[in-house]
Amino acid sequence: MSQRATASVAFQGERGAFSYSAALKLLGASIRDLPCATFRDVFESLKSGKVKFAVLPIENTLHGSVHENYDHLLEYGFPICGETNIRIAHNLIAMPGTRFGDVRKAFSHPVALNQCRQFFQKHKKIEPVSFYDTAGSVKMLSERSEPGAAAIASETAAQIYKGEILRRNIEDDRQNFTRFFLLTKQPRHRQTGSGVWKTSVAFSTENAPGALFRAMACFALRDLNLTKIESRPLRGKPWEYLFYVDLIGRADDRPVQNALNNLSETTRFVRVLGSYRPTS
Amino acid sequence: MSQRATASVAFQGERGAFSYSAALKLLGASIRDLPCATFRDVFESLKSGKVKFAVLPIENTLHGSVHENYDHLLEYGFPICGETNIRIAHNLIAMPGTRFGDVRKAFSHPVALNQCRQFFQKHKKIEPVSFYDTAGSVKMLSERSEPGAAAIASETAAQIYKGEILRRNIEDDRQNFTRFFLLTKQPRHRQTGSGVWKTSVAFSTENAPGALFRAMACFALRDLNLTKIESRPLRGKPWEYLFYVDLIGRADDRPVQNALNNLSETTRFVRVLGSYRPTS
Repeated sequence: MSQRATASVAFQGERGAFSYSAALKLLGASIRDLPCATFRDVFESLKSGKVKFAVLPIENTLHGSVHENYDHLLEYGFPICGETNIRIAHNLIAMPGTRFGDVRKAFSHPVALNQCRQFFQKHKKIEPVSFYDTAGSVKMLSERSEPGAAAIASETAAQIYKGEILRRNIEDDRQNFTRFFLLTKQPRHRQTGSGVWKTSVAFSTENAPGALFRAMACFALRDLNLTKIESRPLRGKPWEYLFYVDLIGRADDRPVQNALNNLSETTRFVRVLGSYRPTS
Repeated sequence: MSQRATASVAFQGERGAFSYSAALKLLGASIRDLPCATFRDVFESLKSGKVKFAVLPIENTLHGSVHENYDHLLEYGFPICGETNIRIAHNLIAMPGTRFGDVRKAFSHPVALNQCRQFFQKHKKIEPVSFYDTAGSVKMLSERSEPGAAAIASETAAQIYKGEILRRNIEDDRQNFTRFFLLTKQPRHRQTGSGVWKTSVAFSTENAPGALFRAMACFALRDLNLTKIESRPLRGKPWEYLFYVDLIGRADDRPVQNALNNLSETTRFVRVLGSYRPTS
């Protein structure tokens, strides 16, 4: 028996979804996974103690930030304790016995189908068919016999549902990455990742020209390097904004502490979302 | 005959999609519309002269910025000449004769289905079924008889395909807005919208602490108000970023010109994406 306990982790989607791959990368192969229908369900599972960890997509190189999850981060207050990136690679997957020449339909989430347009243009005899989930489409094929049917999903989904990959990397754009956060209720600040520490902060400024500039000055004065900044209009408050900032450093480093103290003088609200080391 | 020519406009999705509603709001009811399969097709239609205008989603309050369209804006160089916001309201739509009590299936894009989870929890006899497009699901119902079937889409889609709205505003979150840009090859800088002028700018900074701070100073020194700032990692160049900034003012206003000149001294690349007045 290993002394390291199996980590329980909630994520949105079916087993084999890209969030599941992120969970494996962040926590290792020995996880007890809890697939959830919605992002809110993932947060609720962590809140209720059903799981010790949650994995959530926070931004994608093509589709931008997942504001819904930033909202949940602020509402639930669970700290970020890890980060990783997953390349979104799509594969044509069928049950054993189906040959590529037999395939007439490919099931997947419409966003994934749309990311494989060149494949469908080249193989006109294969019809794209919308399904609620990428990994779920492989699961469906494994549960019912559907002659001439394939699915488009991750390699992990093929492994889980015992499908065969007929064509690899059929996505149009290989530069499609999703960034995931790992959350837990009480992080032990152990070194789970490698490389530099990063800290994510949310804050809102008053409605005045130069307010953001004064906020930026708090970081610039300490030579802190920002790796992300994003504004988002506050609901129902025209001209007021919420900002997301990621910086290099730990929240308990002296210069970062000084910057955050300074920031709270010039802004309406500051919240540290967590300090973490990226898992590459 | 009106002197005002019918405006030709390309957009992604079927007639009745939210982009189509944005086109009506931006250009009036008398449009010649060109539905396109992809965002790139929309840009290509404008480039080839097939249409005079293009309408594109650029950000959503829940799902963030559409980076793909920022990429196309930089690649094609067509200026932004208008802006509007559309509230994403979902309706349960069926062909005439179908009563609410008869409905057993609701077709729509999975993202729309997922935004109506409370409706499906309340009405468990209605099964959500994934389809490639919201408006396309109403079009499909109008083309083939499908007993007990409904679709989830915009009011405009119901009007176009002669469907009846059985339940209005079934989305979970009413604070779901998408912002759209209007593009044209040669804007005449006429007053198409109302209220203040806005200017959108993209720039990239060198990899050094404080680089963004110096860029922000260019705007703060002229008391220019920013309404959006967002960073995006540059592909294949770790630690280099592309920034999107929206500010209040026109690119040919003196203070804005000065700020942009100043910005080009401190950054690697600056591009004005357009000046426009929002249509509310």
